[in-house]
Amino acid sequence: MGASSGQTGGHSGGHGDGRAAGGRYEQFQAFRTRLNERILNQGKPEGQGGAATIVTKRFFALDDQTYRDTSGEGGLDKKTKELLGLAASMVLRCDDCIAYHVDQCVQAGCTDRQIWETFDVALIVGGSIVIPHLRRACEFLDECRTRGS
Amino acid sequence: MGASSGQTGGHSGGHGDGRAAGGRYEQFQAFRTRLNERILNQGKPEGQGGAATIVTKRFFALDDQTYRDTSGEGGLDKKTKELLGLAASMVLRCDDCIAYHVDQCVQAGCTDRQIWETFDVALIVGGSIVIPHLRRACEFLDECRTRGS
Amino acid sequence: MGASSGQTGGHSGGHGDGRAAGGRYEQFQAFRTRLNERILNQGKPEGQGGAATIVTKRFFALDDQTYRDTSGEGGLDKKTKELLGLAASMVLRCDDCIAYHVDQCVQAGCTDRQIWETFDVALIVGGSIVIPHLRRACEFLDECRTRGS
Amino acid sequence: MGASSGQTGGHSGGHGDGRAAGGRYEQFQAFRTRLNERILNQGKPEGQGGAATIVTKRFFALDDQTYRDTSGEGGLDKKTKELLGLAASMVLRCDDCIAYHVDQCVQAGCTDRQIWETFDVALIVGGSIVIPHLRRACEFLDECRTRGS
Amino acid sequence: MGASSGQTGGHSGGHGDGRAAGGRYEQFQAFRTRLNERILNQGKPEGQGGAATIVTKRFFALDDQTYRDTSGEGGLDKKTKELLGLAASMVLRCDDCIAYHVDQCVQAGCTDRQIWETFDVALIVGGSIVIPHLRRACEFLDECRTRGS
Amino acid sequence: MGASSGQTGGHSGGHGDGRAAGGRYEQFQAFRTRLNERILNQGKPEGQGGAATIVTKRFFALDDQTYRDTSGEGGLDKKTKELLGLAASMVLRCDDCIAYHVDQCVQAGCTDRQIWETFDVALIVGGSIVIPHLRRACEFLDECRTRGS
Repeated sequence: MGASSGQTGGHSGGHGDGRAAGGRYEQFQAFRTRLNERILNQGKPEGQGGAATIVTKRFFALDDQTYRDTSGEGGLDKKTKELLGLAASMVLRCDDCIAYHVDQCVQAGCTDRQIWETFDVALIVGGSIVIPHLRRACEFLDECRTRGS
Repeated sequence: MGASSGQTGGHSGGHGDGRAAGGRYEQFQAFRTRLNERILNQGKPEGQGGAATIVTKRFFALDDQTYRDTSGEGGLDKKTKELLGLAASMVLRCDDCIAYHVDQCVQAGCTDRQIWETFDVALIVGGSIVIPHLRRACEFLDECRTRGS
Repeated sequence: MGASSGQTGGHSGGHGDGRAAGGRYEQFQAFRTRLNERILNQGKPEGQGGAATIVTKRFFALDDQTYRDTSGEGGLDKKTKELLGLAASMVLRCDDCIAYHVDQCVQAGCTDRQIWETFDVALIVGGSIVIPHLRRACEFLDECRTRGS
Repeated sequence: MGASSGQTGGHSGGHGDGRAAGGRYEQFQAFRTRLNERILNQGKPEGQGGAATIVTKRFFALDDQTYRDTSGEGGLDKKTKELLGLAASMVLRCDDCIAYHVDQCVQAGCTDRQIWETFDVALIVGGSIVIPHLRRACEFLDECRTRGS
Repeated sequence: MGASSGQTGGHSGGHGDGRAAGGRYEQFQAFRTRLNERILNQGKPEGQGGAATIVTKRFFALDDQTYRDTSGEGGLDKKTKELLGLAASMVLRCDDCIAYHVDQCVQAGCTDRQIWETFDVALIVGGSIVIPHLRRACEFLDECRTRGS
Repeated sequence: MGASSGQTGGHSGGHGDGRAAGGRYEQFQAFRTRLNERILNQGKPEGQGGAATIVTKRFFALDDQTYRDTSGEGGLDKKTKELLGLAASMVLRCDDCIAYHVDQCVQAGCTDRQIWETFDVALIVGGSIVIPHLRRACEFLDECRTRGS
């Protein structure tokens, strides 16, 4: 669960990946799965052999919990939380986090219009330095839609 | 309109204001009004005497436009846009922007729960460096509620 | 314990406090205590009346855990962890976090030389934009030493 | 015009491109052209099919306007504005924005000495964290000069 | 010399100072002088009693050197270098650094128009998060002009 | 010496390199050596032909000096300074700087546990936006260990 939810499910699909349209999504999933397994490796002693400390593991779990739909108890729904994560990721300019949340927004049922208006807020708050990330986000969003994810 | 909407309506109520509970909200409004008038001063030549250039003025107008409710045409409603602005402001750690958006969220009808869950996303994405801003945001939110704004 | 450890124990002593030498340390403690009580208020329902959500509370606890001395089990000692927290806070330029970690470093027994060399790393990594924070950190360190804390 | 001016004309030539000397400049131009067309696509309804909202389009136009030579009316010339954009991009550490402004500086007639002194300001203000970006900027500048752009 | 040049000559005049128009400039000078003397204190052993290490002292000297007028040898003039320092300080959002460079720009003979166009570049590159700093910069610039500095 | 020590010894091994496990370390060394020679090229006039100005050269030397072991004179040892550099690089999210300091930590004799606890501090201070960098750091650390460096 933790491995596929929250920002911790992000990937290392690097800058420039956008140029290899069609392959970035798969790289995203493969690297995420492989490294999450390594970092959260339950079988190894803490802090050794690539296994994370208990602090890191708890942070991953907490990250996962943050984006849960709480609309049933008066909180925010999944769509809104993922848009919030996307806006925060864009102004902090992390391509991997942006890709992760774009994918989550698509899976949660956000429309292109809703995602683009979130891009707007990030662009205005964060300025033109956000633009290269917006380009890659645009291309990644297209790839998500094409895959029917 | 531009003077009371968007992040451009923010204020210079500085760090530490939280300690003078009861006064920060008024300082927020007074400084915002005074400086917006100076910066957007229509009567002076561009870039002189404290009057902004046309670029700055257009940016202020565009900032204003970004947070408009577009739910009627398939976009995001005012509440969601203000929560997005709040999340972006928190991870970028700007107290004035946070105060502005907290006030806008309250005026748009967001509940404490919705605002606190937005704090959650910002805290998890941005880390413990966000905490001092979360404290001031908490105190400012209380002040907004007390005023019945 | 959580209220006095980790970065969550930080304060809102604002920018410019350095000018009121002699009073910043007390403001630091008073604001920290008051706001931590409000945020972590156990008696109120989640996300209401200034009480944080479970996500925020867990993050505060995790932040506390991060700086514990683990030298007995092969990890880093308290001094080193606080110097790490100080370096990270300086390059991210958060005065409150810097003040908190300077105080913790002093309480953990770090010498001025060790603290200044940590300032060096932060200054070189972060550049001249760190200097105003270094000035306030210097003044706060002096105040901590004067108090015999 | 907007497609070839301002930071919006940036590209997605990613990190590490410097290693493939000789190809980065072309990738820069190709990706910029392709994504600008997609984002600013005039023929599609707002916020759908990869076409940006009116907010994004206006921001791109405003970005373009910011770097226009206004020396004839008492403002700054093109060279100075591009050096300002370069310094801002370097301290914010965005390789694409840096590459774009290096190219614009070269086209505006800035000398290597002027560009390197701008690197100096960015390095001192932003610290050693800027160095990896300075390396890639150095290599990109060489490529721009080699092409005789 | 180092005490009055470069960003190291900055001050700790804090956020919100803008509200106390008329006094910020003097606080700026007083705090700068006092803390520079403490940090660069030549009479104390390195890293003790508030005296900086040799690394910090060399960084201060290098910062000073960065903004020297080199137009006589084919480099950039003082005005341009200070505008570069101002743009970098604005996008990194450090009020003290902004105030320092605004003062240096005024002393170097920059016009309001030139300073405001530098604000433009910083605003467009850095986004609306820059606005609260722009407000304080505007007020500080007015104070510098009023003093005839 | 300067060319192989301090953060200036960093490289341009880009984002996503981690996916090409086995090759990143060599690219790291090759690019670092080539660009350092170009930037610090002693034979060319200042600011021309890719040779850095005296400011840049002095900064590189100062960066080198910052991480020297001063434990013999009451300062911090090499291990601690490299862990400080690593924590600062992680919260500022620069993959090249992180890779450089991970390598230096390994060469200085830091254990996996000590490095992972430094990752913890960076993750808690900097938040989930640090996670993609933590993944690449984890993979790079494994590669350093495998090489027996």
